[in-house]
Formats: sequence, C-alpha cells, structure tokens
Amino acid sequence: MSMDLTFLGTGSAYPSPHRGASAVVLRAEGECWLFDCGEGTQTQLMKSQLKAGKITKVFISHLHGDHLFGLPGLLCTVSLNCSPTQPPHCVDIFGPVGLRHFLRVALELSGSQLLFPYAVHELEHTADQCPAEGLLSPAVTQSSESLHPQERQGRTICLDEKSECYLLFEEKQFTVKAFRLFHRIPSFGFCVQEHDRPGRLNTQLLKELGLKPGPLYGQLKNGKTITLENGRVVKPSEALELDIPGRKVCILGDCSSLLGEGGQVACRGADILVHEATLADGHRERAVEHGHSTPSMAAAVARSCKVSRLVLYHFSQRYKPASLQKDTEEDDVLELLRQAEDGLRGTATEVVLAEDFLTLTIPIKRPEN
Amino acid sequence: MSMDLTFLGTGSAYPSPHRGASAVVLRAEGECWLFDCGEGTQTQLMKSQLKAGKITKVFISHLHGDHLFGLPGLLCTVSLNCSPTQPPHCVDIFGPVGLRHFLRVALELSGSQLLFPYAVHELEHTADQCPAEGLLSPAVTQSSESLHPQERQGRTICLDEKSECYLLFEEKQFTVKAFRLFHRIPSFGFCVQEHDRPGRLNTQLLKELGLKPGPLYGQLKNGKTITLENGRVVKPSEALELDIPGRKVCILGDCSSLLGEGGQVACRGADILVHEATLADGHRERAVEHGHSTPSMAAAVARSCKVSRLVLYHFSQRYKPASLQKDTEEDDVLELLRQAEDGLRGTATEVVLAEDFLTLTIPIKRPEN
Ligand SMILES: [Zn+2]
Ligand SMILES: [Zn+2]
Ligand SMILES: [Zn+2]
Ligand SMILES: [Zn+2]
Repeated sequence: MSMDLTFLGTGSAYPSPHRGASAVVLRAEGECWLFDCGEGTQTQLMKSQLKAGKITKVFISHLHGDHLFGLPGLLCTVSLNCSPTQPPHCVDIFGPVGLRHFLRVALELSGSQLLFPYAVHELEHTADQCPAEGLLSPAVTQSSESLHPQERQGRTICLDEKSECYLLFEEKQFTVKAFRLFHRIPSFGFCVQEHDRPGRLNTQLLKELGLKPGPLYGQLKNGKTITLENGRVVKPSEALELDIPGRKVCILGDCSSLLGEGGQVACRGADILVHEATLADGHRERAVEHGHSTPSMAAAVARSCKVSRLVLYHFSQRYKPASLQKDTEEDDVLELLRQAEDGLRGTATEVVLAEDFLTLTIPIKRPEN
Repeated sequence: MSMDLTFLGTGSAYPSPHRGASAVVLRAEGECWLFDCGEGTQTQLMKSQLKAGKITKVFISHLHGDHLFGLPGLLCTVSLNCSPTQPPHCVDIFGPVGLRHFLRVALELSGSQLLFPYAVHELEHTADQCPAEGLLSPAVTQSSESLHPQERQGRTICLDEKSECYLLFEEKQFTVKAFRLFHRIPSFGFCVQEHDRPGRLNTQLLKELGLKPGPLYGQLKNGKTITLENGRVVKPSEALELDIPGRKVCILGDCSSLLGEGGQVACRGADILVHEATLADGHRERAVEHGHSTPSMAAAVARSCKVSRLVLYHFSQRYKPASLQKDTEEDDVLELLRQAEDGLRGTATEVVLAEDFLTLTIPIKRPEN
C-alpha cells in the first residue's frame, strides 16, 4: 500500500503568497487525512494533485487560527463538490476541546448545510500543556446549543494516564494516537501507526512441497498451520517471510517541547517525524517565549526518538522558500536545515525542509532480521 | 481626493486559485474600507498593492462563508503587523445580526489577542429578506458571553422605516448607508455617498477686485459673504465655482433582487454600482433559486437607478478570468459582459467585468450646470 505526505502549507502565524498556513495531508490507499487546516487550505488543495472530496478524517493540533480558520470553508467546499450519487461518509474531526463549538457556530451562522455528516471528537488537555493564560474557561468552549443538523455526537477522549497517550481510533490498517505538547495553548501531536503485516508466502518452497496456489495458501497467510495430503505439516513460520513492519508517521502541532513520556514513546522509531521549526537557533529565546521550536530543538526530539526522517515545517514567514530566496536576504531557510543537520550529526536521521506542495513517499519497510 | 475600488476576490461560493472569494476595498485618502472578507482575503491583500494595516472599517454583506470566513484571520494578521508605536484605532465592523457572535467565538477559541480594539455594529434584518429557512433563531445569533477583551460595545442599527435604509454613520466626508437585499439569508447592500464640496474660488475675479490670498479667501470658501475695504460686497455665489458633487459608490451583497425602495433610492445616480452576476442569463432560474442574479438582472437594477458604471462580480467559479479563458471552454465570462451590455442598450451606463486585483478609479465629478 502506498503512503505519502503532502504539505499544503508550511508557514507560521498566517498564510502568505509564499507559504500557506499549516496543513498536511497523509494519503493512504486513496483516502486522505488532513492534519491542521489553516486559512486557505482549500485553495492549496485545489492547486495540489489531491482531491478535497477524498478527505475522510481531519486532525487539528490546536486552535490557533493558522491551524484552524480554514476548516469551516473546507467542509463547505467539500460539500459543494460532493457527488450526490455517492453515499456520504461521516467526516471524523479530532482536536482540542472547543473545536466542536467553533465549528458549530461557524457553520450555523453562515447557514452552511453539508451534504455529509461530521463528528467532532475532542481531546481533553491537561492544565500543564500551556501557561495558565492559555487555558480557556469552560464557558467559552462548551456548546449549549443542540447539534448542527449534519453533526453526529462526537466522543470526548481523555488522556490514558499510564501511556500518557490518547487513543483516537484503531482500524484495520492503522492505530492513531495523540499526545501532549507544550505551547501557548493546549497543542497535540498525532501518531499514525500502520499495523505490521504478515510477510509474503515463500511460493518457491510451497511449490517444492507440491502445494499449488489455492485456499491453503490463504490459510497459511492467515497464520494457520496446514497438513498436506502426504502428511507433511507446514507451519506459517516456514512458509511465510518475516512480518513487514508497519510504518509510523508522527505529525506535531506547534510546541516548544513534548510533554511527559507519551510523545517520546509514540514517536520512537518513526519513519517520519514532522516537527515545527518556526525560527532559527539564533532566535531560540524568542521562539520558546512564543511556544515554538528551533531546528536544533526539533533535532533533539528526532535524535532521542531515533526517527528515520525529520521534516521541518511551520517556518516564520520571514523564511522564503529556497526557490525564491535571494542572496541578499538575511533570513535563509537553508540555515534551518543546516542547524537541524548539525543537531543530528552522527545519526542516520535525514532532515528535510518542507515546502508547500512537497510530497514525501513513505516506502514500505523491509522485514526486520 | 482620490478614490478607487480594488477587487480582491470575484468568485462565488468558495475561493479558487483563479478567483478569490468576495472582497472589495474602497480606498479614499489612504484609508481602506473592506467590503466582505471571504477566506483568503488576507493573502489576496498581500498580493495587491494595498496594505491590510490601512483597513479601518469592514462591511459584511451577509454571513455566507464566502463573504465571512476570512475575517478572523484578517484581523489577527492586521494585528501582527500593527506598529506598536502607532496609537491603535478602533476597527468598526458592520454586518448582519450574528456577526458579533461569530467573531467573538472565533477570536476567543483561537486565543487571538488583537493589538487594536474593534466593535461590531449589527444591522437588524426584516423577515422578508429571505425564505423562512434562511432566518437564524436568536439562540444562534445572540452572544451571552461577555465582550472579547479587545471588543468595544457595538450598536444595533435598525431599519429607518421611512427611507427603508440603515444609517451606518456620517462623517466629515462621507455618509454610509445600508439597504436590504433578497437572498437565501439576510443580505445587505452598502452605499457610500461622498458629500458635495464647495467649488474652487474664482481667483481671477478676486484678483480683479483687488483681493489677495488670505483669510478672506477662507471665509468665502466657507460660505460667508465678505465686504472689501472699498465697500464692495462679495457673495460666495459669485466668488465660488459651482459645488463639486460628491461621488457615490454602491456595493451589493449576494441577491436575486433589491427589497423595498431603500436600495433604489440609495443607488440612484451612483458612479459605480457593484452587483453580483453569479450565472449567465441562460441559468436564470437556477440563479434565482439560489438567491443570485444574472447579468440582465444586474443590468435592470443599473438601468432603473441610472448609474454611470455597472461592475459585475461574484462569478461562479465555472467562469475563468478572461485571460485564462480557452476557446474550447463552454463558459465564457465575456458572455456575462455582453448580456449586461444588452440589458443596458440605449443608456450611457458602462459595464465592467471585475477580475481579482482590478482597480477602478472613481474620478472627481464636474460641477453640474
Ligand atoms: Zn502556528
Ligand atoms: Zn500555535
Ligand atoms: Zn456569495
Ligand atoms: Zn450568499
């Protein structure tokens, strides 16, 4: 199964003509999952090769406008382009407490009727995810109104105290968890873990044993031991190659650090860690003051979690895309790359600078010996 | 004083890479007034020659997302670019009932602190402005919460039954009114009327009378009769050229028609009437069903109001800008121009198709003889 990640916006604070506001799409088997939805995401989607109508799940890391304000418009436009013949699926939306109220008010006041149902599943933050002034009072986040006509009741997801993670859902191919970050307001990271899959059948061996393709192949693949007509017993372990390990993609919202052990565990060994790097290391103090990270801070996370690839994004708009960079400009996005690479010297971790419309493929992993 | 109108978005329903969502800026003496603020308006502003920080007033015609969803982000970005040395002015925002609640919820939940105060002045609609299902219940539009920290108490503006207009404000140079439109939800048009100004002094005559430039010139200009040393009485009427009539710009939100006499009177003799034309005349039934207009419908308004220029905008995204139009495409925006021109045959009204980033200058008028 192919998996890829497309960056629709890589700028911080607001969308600009050079960098859209935060939005990343993870695509697997044609289904698209959207991570954050800053203003203008729907237009960036139209400029990309992706189709808005394929979005089945949305994950909002935190409620800052540059990650959120594109969501009502995106849902409206997806609805306009809905095929009336296709049965509508429910769009599941995950995000911080308050997201449900925001979306309800935006859709209701704008008189927006969607052609598909949606549900907002809220993650309960802990009080230590941000300075006290970043916490909203329940009076602001709670909706007293009834559900929007197209809204289905969403869940409230609490932190699992033991793993320090939020289990968002588990489905056939993926388990998705969230974990806590420290930022100016409660912010979350998301971990998409593909399940391990059984290895391929050793057809060469099976042919030598005289077994032809058929139902017995399927039984072996499903982990059953079989007995041939001649009495020979064949175990899956001898007929199957090693398990193919599932891939892991972790996408973090704005943060100056992970909070607790949840993120450390969730990101361990990730194939891709998408981490913000708003400002260069020279502005570290200012970055942290605003709840943000620098490249060496992102690199430290990548190093301790032993990830394969660290992707930096959410750059201050002062950093133009490398293709537009002029020699005369002081702020050079390539400096961010160098700083992260410095922080990862001696490791096998590759660093990538995200740009709007960059697509990264996440290759199928080889069985581990 | 120079006055011009810049179109930041001319598309209907949603922003696309070819046409932004609705947003028009009226600029006079460096101050900018924004009419509607669809998603992506702040990015369109950055692409234009205009400065977001110059926006002092915002007018929202109706609460559909393609006219509204860019507003919270725009305010946040204006704030980010605020000069901390300049004393902040209050941004006045005018729009339908419910706008105050929308903005408050969006700013509060996103933790947005503005560096300037703002006030939302709500226009009370009448029940006949839309089908019954387009009216929001007070439970949805009313804010029970307290003001946002940067929010100043706004007014509620009622329809003046006699003139069928809403008086938004009167200032030194302009009077701004609103009037009712018929659409799927309550929608409004805005009329910016520049005040007439006294004509220039006939300096030739004054010199002949032996009067040199000085305070007496100012008295004449201010409408006072003066007496020269030789006893000659000079009336303003003989010393001043004719009054320079004020310009009038009318910008209408989405509509399938004006409602009542307010709009007819407000738009009479306008220098520019900005009117939507979502679909071509061939789709008239569908346009009206969705509360929209076609070019001949817009032309009929322009004709009955005897306006100088009719500017069409809010085109369905099926109509590409003329510059991107391919011969093979069925939908041709120039068809919309021809249909409006047909509807205005025999009049002096000029028709203009708006495109994103088009700027129209509104020349100073000549005194009327
Ligand atoms: Zn951000
Ligand atoms: Zn943030
Ligand atoms: Zn519209
Ligand atoms: Zn509308």
